[in-house]
Amino acid sequence: MKIVIIGGGPGGYVAAIRAAQLGAAVTLIENKYLGGTCLNVGCIPTKVLLHTTELLDVLKHDAKELGITISDYHGDWPKLQKRKTKIIKKLVGGVNGLLKNNGITKIMGTAVFVNAHQIKVISDNQDEINNAATVIDFDFAIIATGSKPVIPPIPGSNHPDVITSDTALSLDAVPESLGIIGGGVIGCEFASIYNAFGCKVTIIEMLPEIVANMDRDIVKPLKEKLLKDGVDIFTSTRVESIQESAGGLTVTTSSQTGEKTITAKKVLLSVGRKPELSTLNLDLAGIKTARGAIVVNQKMQTNVPHIYAIGDCNGGVMLAHVASAEGILAVETIMGKRSQIDFKTIPYCVYTKPELASVGLTEAQAREAGYDVKVGIFPMAVNGKAMIMGETTGVVKYVTDAATGEILGLHMAGPRATDLIVEGALAIRLEATVAELMATIHAHPTVGEALMEAAHAVDGHAIHLMR
Amino acid sequence: MKIVIIGGGPGGYVAAIRAAQLGAAVTLIENKYLGGTCLNVGCIPTKVLLHTTELLDVLKHDAKELGITISDYHGDWPKLQKRKTKIIKKLVGGVNGLLKNNGITKIMGTAVFVNAHQIKVISDNQDEINNAATVIDFDFAIIATGSKPVIPPIPGSNHPDVITSDTALSLDAVPESLGIIGGGVIGCEFASIYNAFGCKVTIIEMLPEIVANMDRDIVKPLKEKLLKDGVDIFTSTRVESIQESAGGLTVTTSSQTGEKTITAKKVLLSVGRKPELSTLNLDLAGIKTARGAIVVNQKMQTNVPHIYAIGDCNGGVMLAHVASAEGILAVETIMGKRSQIDFKTIPYCVYTKPELASVGLTEAQAREAGYDVKVGIFPMAVNGKAMIMGETTGVVKYVTDAATGEILGLHMAGPRATDLIVEGALAIRLEATVAELMATIHAHPTVGEALMEAAHAVDGHAIHLMR
Repeated sequence: MKIVIIGGGPGGYVAAIRAAQLGAAVTLIENKYLGGTCLNVGCIPTKVLLHTTELLDVLKHDAKELGITISDYHGDWPKLQKRKTKIIKKLVGGVNGLLKNNGITKIMGTAVFVNAHQIKVISDNQDEINNAATVIDFDFAIIATGSKPVIPPIPGSNHPDVITSDTALSLDAVPESLGIIGGGVIGCEFASIYNAFGCKVTIIEMLPEIVANMDRDIVKPLKEKLLKDGVDIFTSTRVESIQESAGGLTVTTSSQTGEKTITAKKVLLSVGRKPELSTLNLDLAGIKTARGAIVVNQKMQTNVPHIYAIGDCNGGVMLAHVASAEGILAVETIMGKRSQIDFKTIPYCVYTKPELASVGLTEAQAREAGYDVKVGIFPMAVNGKAMIMGETTGVVKYVTDAATGEILGLHMAGPRATDLIVEGALAIRLEATVAELMATIHAHPTVGEALMEAAHAVDGHAIHLMR
Repeated sequence: MKIVIIGGGPGGYVAAIRAAQLGAAVTLIENKYLGGTCLNVGCIPTKVLLHTTELLDVLKHDAKELGITISDYHGDWPKLQKRKTKIIKKLVGGVNGLLKNNGITKIMGTAVFVNAHQIKVISDNQDEINNAATVIDFDFAIIATGSKPVIPPIPGSNHPDVITSDTALSLDAVPESLGIIGGGVIGCEFASIYNAFGCKVTIIEMLPEIVANMDRDIVKPLKEKLLKDGVDIFTSTRVESIQESAGGLTVTTSSQTGEKTITAKKVLLSVGRKPELSTLNLDLAGIKTARGAIVVNQKMQTNVPHIYAIGDCNGGVMLAHVASAEGILAVETIMGKRSQIDFKTIPYCVYTKPELASVGLTEAQAREAGYDVKVGIFPMAVNGKAMIMGETTGVVKYVTDAATGEILGLHMAGPRATDLIVEGALAIRLEATVAELMATIHAHPTVGEALMEAAHAVDGHAIHLMR
């Protein structure tokens, strides 16, 4: 079985490894950087910066209280940049090693469909191409070309100081001030990072709330923390234009309260991402797209049955772990296995402080879906371990079906939320009920106890909540 | 329904609240400190000290690498002691508030059985006793008197510089050196704490390994870290005597390699705990004990059907969360409910760095139980988030039944292990299989991914492991 995979991100390279494990002959084509956006300019580098951000926050707010006397400290941005590069290099090296170890042929170049059965690889590096075949036949192809930042049609958005997340990860120095257009996950993570390094940050969000896709109850603590840390947030505010000015860039915005201008040295555009399909020549293979994304069925199959599309390029949920899961699903389907991956268990995480994490339905979504909803809420402020960690900002919220007790969603803001969300994901996968969660012993003292208490709270009998 | 609960620790006070929630008239009798060992001289204070220990470790080993320049810092032990006291006070205050809020009568004093239907309360504070009844009738009683440290019969163990964990939590100053007799959970946690504050620590353990109740594969990384940090560890070594000497105390030990002496300013005895039954007059109520513990059935009922015993005093698993779970079970049984708490889901945690956590059967236990065991191991060193956190020491290990794929145990050493153990506990509660774990999407980049990979590794197809 010859499988060609286009794109070496967390969708493509994971699919390639799984395909090799199942005995396929795999060729992986990548035109920029192995590991894709995720490893090079996405998940990994942001989390490297955020981890140091978190420590800076501890030093600033908690160290003294924790019994540690520090005479002087400062964040060293260039050094952090070096760490970021080092970790990326190590992880990319790891992926390279895994490809070799699994006998996967890797070609650096741009894949272009010749027809529905052949792919041509174009590259600046002619040697590399000559070693491989320039035209490749395949039994199955998996497209995993990912996405790129959306550049909104705002006058002035082409100014060199107007940047995307790719650039924001690698600025030589921390700007004096940063305007962030778009208060979603990416916008909030960068707000935390640059704010911690002493930059004046302003978030401008068109919607009535930041991180609009998450449950209101968990976004609130994050918003409060950002505001407390000195980040300015303007919601329900539209950006009209960006202009060069004496102070750097002037962003003109409009809202119900009128026009307002914000001045910043740099402006980050983080209004979303869109599928990267520009180089594929999809027409020559007869692959259908809709609204700029490749159309796939539930098995990630395109209209051309032996060609699949996984990850950001199919316009679904744009998250690395979803791309990986879709990659495994596509490969297992191709190889005749019945894949079991459950897409109701997709976790959404924001790596700020507090961390935010969600899985399943929000309260609003569950009500919309017609459930008789019962929620259980437990505040982090009452959790012993959170108190010990000095991280009492946050909340745990279980969304359940009143009729059956089934867990529909878990939403959490607080320490370790991005990891603790595993409980909700597994509960949803196994169609667990509140009673089953309560019957499971949670260690003391852990943040995880707050999840058990939130489950108890669904029936109004959390132990550590006043009645 | 009149329920009297003897002991206000995590067993007793949780039982009291649950009983009140279910409509019982509850009296809680505590003779020392509300919150018991756990809140006052156990789980909570140790974790307060350990949290600062962890930050000291980060400052020492990681801050520079993380891009934070610190000119000078030091741990301030007296200040940390103050924080410890503050947090205990806050939590005990919280428990007090919950008791009031739930309409529970609290009596400070020592409970003594008069017969199987009456309890007498003895106290120094005569006023308080007079306000309540000195002799209390009950429909049901729950004994939750906890445990106390075992003082081994070692010559010299009565020297004032030979201390137990109670004292070790509150030393005025950090001793120059500390010998720790007993390398279990408590011994290792104190080793981490005092070592971080510049004390020379030596652990002496009679068994061939430290933390003997946990899976070997997760104890190994902890032992390596302790040794690397400069803690001396002598296993298979028996303490023969403790004597005052010029250097403080000289501990004489024997092992297969002969006699050895260790000199330390203080010696901590952490060889275990035993039920605290000394003041109860159990005979007058006709309550049976065996090997120093109250005998109970699976519902925590003693031989006297309307008297229950929960937590450490019944000689079961001596953990706060087990005491709480047993308290809820006892109360729900008394109140005619069918309690669902699943005691196969007990997590065991060590709050060192790396954190250790276990639930279910170890590999050795599963083999002994006759299972055809398959394990999946994934090293923390390959997990992206662990790399970002600079905490790559550790491993995740799933123990499964080869015949059915059922999860039998989860064992983990690494960042956030004490919280991530929830996945294993819930999996065991729901009799989940490896396939169901793999089908659950784990967020990227999280430490939790290592758990998914360990599940994949059971069938030999972890994505990020060389073949």
